[in-house]
Amino acid sequence: MSGEFSLIDQYFAHQQACRPDVILAQGDDCAVVQVPAGQQVAISTDTLVAGTHFLHNADPAMIAHKALASNISDLAAMGAQPAWVSMGISLPEVDHDWLKAFCDAFFNLADYYGIQLIGGDTTKGPLVITLTVQGLVPAGEAMTRSGAKVGDLVYVTGHLGDAKAGLDVILETHQHSNKALNNTLLERHFLSSPRVAAGLQLRGLASAAIDISDGLVADLGHILKRSNVGADLYVDQLPVSQELKQFLASEEACYRYALTSGEEYELCFTAPKQHAQQIRSLLADTPFTCIGEITERGEIHLYQQQPTQQSIQQQSTQQQPIQWQLDGFDHFKANS
Amino acid sequence: MSGEFSLIDQYFAHQQACRPDVILAQGDDCAVVQVPAGQQVAISTDTLVAGTHFLHNADPAMIAHKALASNISDLAAMGAQPAWVSMGISLPEVDHDWLKAFCDAFFNLADYYGIQLIGGDTTKGPLVITLTVQGLVPAGEAMTRSGAKVGDLVYVTGHLGDAKAGLDVILETHQHSNKALNNTLLERHFLSSPRVAAGLQLRGLASAAIDISDGLVADLGHILKRSNVGADLYVDQLPVSQELKQFLASEEACYRYALTSGEEYELCFTAPKQHAQQIRSLLADTPFTCIGEITERGEIHLYQQQPTQQSIQQQSTQQQPIQWQLDGFDHFKANS
Repeated sequence: MSGEFSLIDQYFAHQQACRPDVILAQGDDCAVVQVPAGQQVAISTDTLVAGTHFLHNADPAMIAHKALASNISDLAAMGAQPAWVSMGISLPEVDHDWLKAFCDAFFNLADYYGIQLIGGDTTKGPLVITLTVQGLVPAGEAMTRSGAKVGDLVYVTGHLGDAKAGLDVILETHQHSNKALNNTLLERHFLSSPRVAAGLQLRGLASAAIDISDGLVADLGHILKRSNVGADLYVDQLPVSQELKQFLASEEACYRYALTSGEEYELCFTAPKQHAQQIRSLLADTPFTCIGEITERGEIHLYQQQPTQQSIQQQSTQQQPIQWQLDGFDHFKANS
Repeated sequence: MSGEFSLIDQYFAHQQACRPDVILAQGDDCAVVQVPAGQQVAISTDTLVAGTHFLHNADPAMIAHKALASNISDLAAMGAQPAWVSMGISLPEVDHDWLKAFCDAFFNLADYYGIQLIGGDTTKGPLVITLTVQGLVPAGEAMTRSGAKVGDLVYVTGHLGDAKAGLDVILETHQHSNKALNNTLLERHFLSSPRVAAGLQLRGLASAAIDISDGLVADLGHILKRSNVGADLYVDQLPVSQELKQFLASEEACYRYALTSGEEYELCFTAPKQHAQQIRSLLADTPFTCIGEITERGEIHLYQQQPTQQSIQQQSTQQQPIQWQLDGFDHFKANS
């Protein structure tokens, strides 16, 4: 690597306190880490490409946050405690302002979650960032996509839809006359907060979990497929923000966004009904909503409202499923 | 990801037998692995970019081999047993022939070293490949760059210089009239064999080790800097192949190539003299050569020949160091 380019490594080296389980960090052929007895290692890799996942002129701090947060979100979905991250990054040029902003945001977020950058590779090329994060989870306790059972309730954390609205703002496909509202949604697109604490608390309670990166119906679809079940979702229960309602004006549009918005980095999880009370008390600090129930039909059915006890008893008044066409909805059949 | 593009994942999924320490591989938010008691994890990340590390039209099998072999070589230099690999890859298009050739070569090499692909991310973008490999090493036994001591001998495995000659062929900066010779050297550039077995055998014997990715003087320079020592190298001891001698014709050119050729993926290691006999017997299946000795002067001195016992006793006949200008030689001062 050329002399000037090798300077980039200075931005990434030795910015953080050393975790006690990191025996060797940057500066040797490999990093070396120590896994505590009784723990397994959860590992996730995500690649972000300029022009595919963000615009070339995007704020470097937001790129850094998004790259790391989306990866940490995968650890959260397994119930793993974040520990280490490795970064492969190619950059078209040595832009010190860009690098400083990128690294400040990256290390702020890494420090917040107690993650140490243990190594990586910096090279010249188009702007592409690949992170491999690793976390620790007690042996056998990782939450997977395959444990959902008929009768389990379906939950999501936070609000859904804002990331898609933020993308509208970025791509200028839809904007609101209120610019502050546009900016709020743009920031929500980039600055998600992975649900690490919720993931840790749900271990042993949730039967299945996934983070919402491709959109609720797509990601819940992964759970259904791996668990060989279906789900009924109650559209009026979908958690949408006041900002999304203001941005889109139509209620139906909000629910459609909530069903398909990707890159939310909220958790979707299922749990037996008897855990409902315990989940409510453990997740007291995390907003979450019950949005449906696992069924034995191998696909997702959408209903306008959650059925009341009365309507369940009077089967004649049973609701008909909504027949919305959603982008890629054919992907969501559990047995496809 | 678009439907067609998501097909790419089929090339990477479930191609291999599952290692017993892989609890979950692809198909969930994270892979989950189990580290055996008493072992630590060595982790290395390398990024290869089309146009920077290989030409856009390079053979996909050779790209795959180079990407994985260079990463495994880092594990070898730590004395780690390869175990798992994660891949982030962006591709400009869905080219099924390219993908098949790439994956066949990748999994062939991975299977040879018992490495399982445990996850990754496939996305649309310029051709960039980031691999994170992980290996296992008994706690406290990883070989580092920092243990070289004055009086230790300096060794390298294999031959040096062929990878640089292969690059000449690729870039057409130098070619031989013998096309078969050119092809042999081109293949040596791409198809290195990481010295995993040698790395495992050297644990407890070598005082420091590194793999030769940036060139012998640069990489030995990293050992010297971390160990706060210097080295005398004997140029006539540098191991160069018959093919390199034929390609370059001049003996001095061969030695210059051996000193600066990067991407060799041979090991350079140091060891106390009293281990010399044991190293010879343990590395019986690995070609290796003693090329110098660690000194207390903080830089590399090159000598034409290894001093004989007689010349050491007759200090008046002591050789003068060679004053070769080598690309980037100023980097190689241990204290720079």
